[in-house]
Amino acid sequence: MGTGEKRILILGGGFGGVYVARHLEKLLQPNEASLCLVNRENYWVYQPMIPEVISGAIGLTDVVAPIRQLCSRTELVMREVESIDLKRKVVTVSPGFRPRRLELPYDYLVTALGSTTRFSGMPGMLEHAKPFRNLSDAMALRNHVIHVLEEAEVETDPEIRKKLLTFVVAGGGFSGVEAIAELNHFVHQVKRKFIRLRSETIRYMLVHHGDRILPEMTARLGDFSDKLLRRRGVEILLRDELAAATSEKAILRSKLEIPTKTIISTVPSQISPVLQHLDCAYDQGRLLVNGNLELVGYEGEVWALGDCAAIRTKSGHPVPPTAQHAIREAKTVAMNVAARMHGGPGSAFAFEGLGKLASLGHFSAVAEILGIRVSGFPAWCLWRTIYLMKMPTFNRKVRIFLDWTLSVLFPPDLVEVRTSLHNAVHKQHFEAGDVVFYQGDVGDYVYIIEDGECDVLQENDGVQTLLATLKRGDYFGEMAVLSDAGRNATVRARTAMDVLLVAKHDFDLLKTSVPALGEVFWDLAASRAAASVKNSA
Amino acid sequence: MGTGEKRILILGGGFGGVYVARHLEKLLQPNEASLCLVNRENYWVYQPMIPEVISGAIGLTDVVAPIRQLCSRTELVMREVESIDLKRKVVTVSPGFRPRRLELPYDYLVTALGSTTRFSGMPGMLEHAKPFRNLSDAMALRNHVIHVLEEAEVETDPEIRKKLLTFVVAGGGFSGVEAIAELNHFVHQVKRKFIRLRSETIRYMLVHHGDRILPEMTARLGDFSDKLLRRRGVEILLRDELAAATSEKAILRSKLEIPTKTIISTVPSQISPVLQHLDCAYDQGRLLVNGNLELVGYEGEVWALGDCAAIRTKSGHPVPPTAQHAIREAKTVAMNVAARMHGGPGSAFAFEGLGKLASLGHFSAVAEILGIRVSGFPAWCLWRTIYLMKMPTFNRKVRIFLDWTLSVLFPPDLVEVRTSLHNAVHKQHFEAGDVVFYQGDVGDYVYIIEDGECDVLQENDGVQTLLATLKRGDYFGEMAVLSDAGRNATVRARTAMDVLLVAKHDFDLLKTSVPALGEVFWDLAASRAAASVKNSA
Repeated sequence: MGTGEKRILILGGGFGGVYVARHLEKLLQPNEASLCLVNRENYWVYQPMIPEVISGAIGLTDVVAPIRQLCSRTELVMREVESIDLKRKVVTVSPGFRPRRLELPYDYLVTALGSTTRFSGMPGMLEHAKPFRNLSDAMALRNHVIHVLEEAEVETDPEIRKKLLTFVVAGGGFSGVEAIAELNHFVHQVKRKFIRLRSETIRYMLVHHGDRILPEMTARLGDFSDKLLRRRGVEILLRDELAAATSEKAILRSKLEIPTKTIISTVPSQISPVLQHLDCAYDQGRLLVNGNLELVGYEGEVWALGDCAAIRTKSGHPVPPTAQHAIREAKTVAMNVAARMHGGPGSAFAFEGLGKLASLGHFSAVAEILGIRVSGFPAWCLWRTIYLMKMPTFNRKVRIFLDWTLSVLFPPDLVEVRTSLHNAVHKQHFEAGDVVFYQGDVGDYVYIIEDGECDVLQENDGVQTLLATLKRGDYFGEMAVLSDAGRNATVRARTAMDVLLVAKHDFDLLKTSVPALGEVFWDLAASRAAASVKNSA
Repeated sequence: MGTGEKRILILGGGFGGVYVARHLEKLLQPNEASLCLVNRENYWVYQPMIPEVISGAIGLTDVVAPIRQLCSRTELVMREVESIDLKRKVVTVSPGFRPRRLELPYDYLVTALGSTTRFSGMPGMLEHAKPFRNLSDAMALRNHVIHVLEEAEVETDPEIRKKLLTFVVAGGGFSGVEAIAELNHFVHQVKRKFIRLRSETIRYMLVHHGDRILPEMTARLGDFSDKLLRRRGVEILLRDELAAATSEKAILRSKLEIPTKTIISTVPSQISPVLQHLDCAYDQGRLLVNGNLELVGYEGEVWALGDCAAIRTKSGHPVPPTAQHAIREAKTVAMNVAARMHGGPGSAFAFEGLGKLASLGHFSAVAEILGIRVSGFPAWCLWRTIYLMKMPTFNRKVRIFLDWTLSVLFPPDLVEVRTSLHNAVHKQHFEAGDVVFYQGDVGDYVYIIEDGECDVLQENDGVQTLLATLKRGDYFGEMAVLSDAGRNATVRARTAMDVLLVAKHDFDLLKTSVPALGEVFWDLAASRAAASVKNSA
């Protein structure tokens, strides 16, 4: 790095961040500035195609592109942004293999960190509703759906089968509609392969708070989509929304309870937590920027774009969270960063949007382009064409075609796909009356009550006895885990209850090595075993 | 299921299990028997192509096929086999969403559960060496290699960079050679994309206990492979083997220590743990079968084939663990099961093998087919041709061609790929002198000593003081995790040491909910903080 060189730091590797880097690589000389982009993945995702990952209609390599390939002059740091210090002009990123945080100083900062699904305030949502936002979400969802089908095929209890075969999607906007359409298409195609499921009814439910789905589009296209989905067997519940979730059911605001193992939530969203408490101004929870997309208070130093910034179109409407807008914003930001360095005038963001598109599963879509409305197969063809047109780099366009033809002659892709980053200690939410486990079940977890109460019930010769009522801070389920036998009682939530779960494997490791922990649980198990013997005697 | 129907249970969904099911579907009438296959995945893997997954030369959908599609009349149970009761004729499988184990009774049992990598007895291997056996292993390895390259690109310490850029493969047989060849090919191709790595030297090391690699083949082809790999930059260490591993290095029997973050072990193997303690006879750790592949002592009831059975070729040699043998064994087993049901005579397994093939990365291979030796590009073409020929079902053959051409017109695949099933509480192994963490590092884990001792060292103004020596049962690292500050001391292993790690996230959850645990750690942290203050004063 030369001494006079300016350091430009870009946060986020979505449409916004990657396109800023691409434009800056063109606008600036290599010796003028060093470009650095921070993203937790080393690939860029073609966000509009994510729903198609569920059905596998599109291969993974067609949805993603290595960032190094898209912006070859930009240094990529594959880490997570942990904090931003706007005063010191330093961004701190998470540790890698070595447990040291890395500090990245900057002269110019571009934040394009997007948004995440907000689950707080809705009981059980964080634990039991699946987000549907990025590639990992889509892959995890695909795997979950296949798993549910496999379990339904083996399950003999009709109630549980029904629960396994019910899919609930919350949010009737673009992503909710695309998610249920792809899900429906996928399950419909694969259920033929299952000997028992072939003839089974599968429920698809779309819950939307408004009067009609796809509020982003005209009423006519919304109606078209509504009819098409209903014809395919999707139940659409309007003027209602998800209120709570447990591992066994979705609970709507209207008090309707839907037994299900699959709840997908596409609403609501919030900006990335790392951006939520910066020393700057906000507009309805988003970063406040001026017309040149500069962060207010840090003009000429910090720019923000994409879903994390409060940007308005020429006519004053909030910019929708779509790729076409992010791409235009990226161009404006890159021009303004370059202008700042070269001393030229800045330019304001002015773009109204060319149109709107929603895919409704294979071979069908709805579109409004430059005032023209299209639906069905023509819209789907349009969708595919636009997809290819929008793909960055000519190389990439060719690749997608050739991927489908001669994948074998090309160099391998540099795509690291992490599907699960789960923690062994996780949480579960139960509503009053829900059963945590049944007497006789396998002892797979130890439970610790974070909040709420539950009853421990034992059945002997058809007589049910209440052994104990447990509350916040109590543990249960340790007996079966310690003895490797089945559960000797049923546990049922008395109130809404949040619990921590420790998996048997982890519990076994911990209890042998942390004597204090082991003793606490052994004592408890012994006293409860005594109580239980008394009960059965 | 009819009442007179016999229940045939097949365990394992590899070449052996799937081909038995396929043959039985042809040999038996639908009303004669119900077929059921148990496998932990719902897909079958084309095992010989697994090394190519590392480089992504072959798409995932080309290596796997849904079992339901390969044997459409067979019921598939996607669970893990937990125990086999040969006397009661019942197999127990793991619980699914519902915590209940499932018992599957059988009239005829076929076990084809393959083998696993045996890491016991070698310190640190289970924790730090990566197995290379199934699809998940290959995908995890690919992701790990990409991760290591990304970290090396960011890392500034040359020693750590060197460690990140060293890859060690243990075992110079078929799978070790194929693994290092693909790894070399992949890294060589992708390193161009990294600004800093482009000019960096990357070390590939193949450790083999014998005098030459590929002992399965003739000396000439072994030499050819040896030269080709060396020319590509692979260092081959003969007459040596892996003895121990830590997260920072591989330790060979010759005491040579190789600093590395990537150890791949392809040796040795053992049969699946569930088969290890059955009430039957064994031959060198494998199930003892007679010439008709019947389990000795359970003739006419239980058959075993593939890597879990001790099978000999016509000339008396042990059958090698290859697909061609498993396929022939499957045919014999299916015929014998059918003969048993129809009352015909059984047939003995008699097959010598047609040849041997090893892929050496893109466009190169070595082969011995029916006595003819081929190497280089012709062998690679042969390899690809045989691959297509061996693919079961005409449909599948066509699919692979069309996958490469018109993937979009075909129905989606039913493939659930689970890449990581990791537990948050895991183990690490350290050799004497190894540093667990350095003063100033981020506090990411709490450590509990399972075995061994370590020193806690604090540096103040350039003076290093020994604060404490910890032993079995002690914890450390809790202070930085509790206070969210950096490590206030360096911890170094005094002897070889095994530790349990509890991730910060899990520790935080546990300590707030298990008061006993929280108190223990707080007390400890407080007393140590006092000692530390005394030291710095």
